[in-house]
Amino acid sequence: MTDYMQEALLEAHDAMIIGEVPIGAVVVHDGKIVGRGHNLREHSQDSTLHAEVLAIQEACMTLGSWRLEDCDLYVTLEPCPMCAGAMINSRIRTCYYGAKDPKAGVAGSLGNLLEDTRFNHQVKVVAGIDEEQAAQLLKSFFQAIRKKRKAAKLAKKQAQKA
Amino acid sequence: MTDYMQEALLEAHDAMIIGEVPIGAVVVHDGKIVGRGHNLREHSQDSTLHAEVLAIQEACMTLGSWRLEDCDLYVTLEPCPMCAGAMINSRIRTCYYGAKDPKAGVAGSLGNLLEDTRFNHQVKVVAGIDEEQAAQLLKSFFQAIRKKRKAAKLAKKQAQKA
Repeated sequence: MTDYMQEALLEAHDAMIIGEVPIGAVVVHDGKIVGRGHNLREHSQDSTLHAEVLAIQEACMTLGSWRLEDCDLYVTLEPCPMCAGAMINSRIRTCYYGAKDPKAGVAGSLGNLLEDTRFNHQVKVVAGIDEEQAAQLLKSFFQAIRKKRKAAKLAKKQAQKA
Repeated sequence: MTDYMQEALLEAHDAMIIGEVPIGAVVVHDGKIVGRGHNLREHSQDSTLHAEVLAIQEACMTLGSWRLEDCDLYVTLEPCPMCAGAMINSRIRTCYYGAKDPKAGVAGSLGNLLEDTRFNHQVKVVAGIDEEQAAQLLKSFFQAIRKKRKAAKLAKKQAQKA
């Protein structure tokens, strides 16, 4: 189980390298990874291209079906409503996730859409897989951004003084 | 307002013609349609290709930005969690929709994700625009499917008897 999350973490790392918020996901079917993705919102300037959506789209293409009934999804961060909805729509079996997202997560933090029995499909939720690593990756990313911004501000101030 | 919904209904009609559940959407910016889409789940075998997602993706491409802050979205059916989430993520201003979806709609029927103040953006909801037309289109589509299935069953029975 943790091996697949390590693959999702590799995807998250790929996102970080290109300056995207580091979130990664993989879809697993019969022990094989059939879809993978990392957040590409900034590079694509497309609000829908979250890691989970890209991994689901690739899995649909690999398996030739929109029904991913025997598939599990591993994602480094708790899914937002869009990604939780995409999992319900594609009938993902289980969602394993790493870090919690108290601001937008809907698999435990702000309710639980995935296990809501009012919808025609429920996705089992398993939280906290390799949580520390996923959280640390996000923390490092935002720390680096703040550092960069601070340095840029300082450089601007010094240029104005000179 | 109803003119844009008529464009969304044209999209829904395009979906019906190719045998997809008739749902259509358009995104409007400064009085112009910048994105349009209709449900393509079966043809693409991709669970994420709902009308709203396609319309949002096209709007992002047209405007060169994932932030659709001054944009309104018109859709013939109440959005599901995935599409409501995509609207929140892209910061759509207002969602106008036609028919209610008591089974999966989250803009009034099964809660209201779009106006949930716990998220970092709220989408204003205006329901019931050209509702009758949108509902009738869906009704006709499902009636035709049931009729086809009944005829196929009958033909099979007769073939077994012969």
